[in-house]
Amino acid sequence: MSSAFVPANPDFESVVRASFGMQGLMRAIGARLVTVTPGRVVIEVPFSETVSQQHGHFHGGVVGAIGDNSGGYAALSLLPAGSEVLTVEYKVNFIRPASGSLLSAEGLVVRAGRTLIATRMDVSVVGAKGVEVCGILQATMMRVDAPPV
Amino acid sequence: MSSAFVPANPDFESVVRASFGMQGLMRAIGARLVTVTPGRVVIEVPFSETVSQQHGHFHGGVVGAIGDNSGGYAALSLLPAGSEVLTVEYKVNFIRPASGSLLSAEGLVVRAGRTLIATRMDVSVVGAKGVEVCGILQATMMRVDAPPV
Amino acid sequence: MSSAFVPANPDFESVVRASFGMQGLMRAIGARLVTVTPGRVVIEVPFSETVSQQHGHFHGGVVGAIGDNSGGYAALSLLPAGSEVLTVEYKVNFIRPASGSLLSAEGLVVRAGRTLIATRMDVSVVGAKGVEVCGILQATMMRVDAPPV
Amino acid sequence: MSSAFVPANPDFESVVRASFGMQGLMRAIGARLVTVTPGRVVIEVPFSETVSQQHGHFHGGVVGAIGDNSGGYAALSLLPAGSEVLTVEYKVNFIRPASGSLLSAEGLVVRAGRTLIATRMDVSVVGAKGVEVCGILQATMMRVDAPPV
Repeated sequence: MSSAFVPANPDFESVVRASFGMQGLMRAIGARLVTVTPGRVVIEVPFSETVSQQHGHFHGGVVGAIGDNSGGYAALSLLPAGSEVLTVEYKVNFIRPASGSLLSAEGLVVRAGRTLIATRMDVSVVGAKGVEVCGILQATMMRVDAPPV
Repeated sequence: MSSAFVPANPDFESVVRASFGMQGLMRAIGARLVTVTPGRVVIEVPFSETVSQQHGHFHGGVVGAIGDNSGGYAALSLLPAGSEVLTVEYKVNFIRPASGSLLSAEGLVVRAGRTLIATRMDVSVVGAKGVEVCGILQATMMRVDAPPV
Repeated sequence: MSSAFVPANPDFESVVRASFGMQGLMRAIGARLVTVTPGRVVIEVPFSETVSQQHGHFHGGVVGAIGDNSGGYAALSLLPAGSEVLTVEYKVNFIRPASGSLLSAEGLVVRAGRTLIATRMDVSVVGAKGVEVCGILQATMMRVDAPPV
Repeated sequence: MSSAFVPANPDFESVVRASFGMQGLMRAIGARLVTVTPGRVVIEVPFSETVSQQHGHFHGGVVGAIGDNSGGYAALSLLPAGSEVLTVEYKVNFIRPASGSLLSAEGLVVRAGRTLIATRMDVSVVGAKGVEVCGILQATMMRVDAPPV
């Protein structure tokens, strides 16, 4: 789906990694930026008490947060230098319990317009039954100018 | 909107508080369960580096997480003893930057069916301009039997 | 919610009515533009075989269509002359059967940015139990320049 | 995605076709049920004035309606005899103008639970640039008992 995308900024990976590195929430939940390719980003979080809900599964808020982020950074990977991405909105369906040792979100750009970028994301959990998709997302991202440094 | 709701379980508040207290994520981000009334729940998070994104605002993942939780617990407040709530899905629109010292999510039940409960949530931020809504959510919650202790 | 809005175009009502009048789908389903005030639009559809699903209720597609349209025109009512509105995305929850003689969608602007406008809509049905909300929606609208005539 | 699904009712296709045939809205907009396989349904609508918006494109309400329906019937194709499907909620992103001669919605089941079924749908338009996806949807469907005849 994302294979046809040509990044507008050859330094897209360092732009994405720099932004991710400044997100306190990602650090607090132990998230890692695993893959950054044009139009496709993968983010992982190992299980810990910090990311749990009341039954010891991953909290849905973590599924949403890394799902959203994987889509936002997939969008950013395609944008010209000096751009940032805001999430306009996202929607998530929780289709299986997020029970396991590792949570992995794959964000894909579906359509990159000049201002708005449509994305879909799958969040999978590595658990007793192998790798299973536990959350599916759809989102709108928006390009904005990066604030001056 | 929620004023007409009659809780099926007189101990609804302690059920909600016990579940909230077991969520590692809520503890990790410093969330507090402020209000628990029938069909209406308020959750707050003070700003900290833990809940930040790259510009020092609240991370959208936190807006989503406490928004979702406030709706889920609003649903749980109306259910009979022995029930739990799963989030089937939610959708969030980010309508202003979540920039300020405190984030507050108000979850309201719109319609409580036997199995599915429809909810709407507003997430507000206390910032330089006073209190402003920064995120609006709509969600489907599902009643399930609580697992045996 | 919409009472504070000041329209940028004093002729907002005629702009909205002209656009609505050009929608073949609205004519085909018998939709009427009932109310056009700044940031708030109401659209109604009487029941007919044309708008039915398999049990003789209003089809969910009609709930979505007039819900979406009521929000889009609520957004358009606030925009400067020469603007049009596109729906970026919407989400609808069907919370009761849409069973009755009349369907009514009320679209409200929640937040009007320069480019994007956030809206919420309630769709109600007039049936045996009186007026009941059967669908709730949340949407993102986008301002674009109207094409030259 | 849907290839692994085994239908619970060998007569699934006639169940789906019978339900579709009773929808007045589908008849009114000229929709055809093109493909019914386990977990996958395709619905098409040729362009006409009936399905138009103000610029002569397909109305977004039609994109939503046939997208929703293709997912609902994809879900129904997997359910035991005596079942019906309700749409709990759906979300649609409009990612390109729906401009062309034919609109085609493909609904796929992503996860079929006992009560709830998660679906994704793509709506494409056949236009001057060939076949292009113009709408992407994500939805929750619910199994209910069919009412006695």
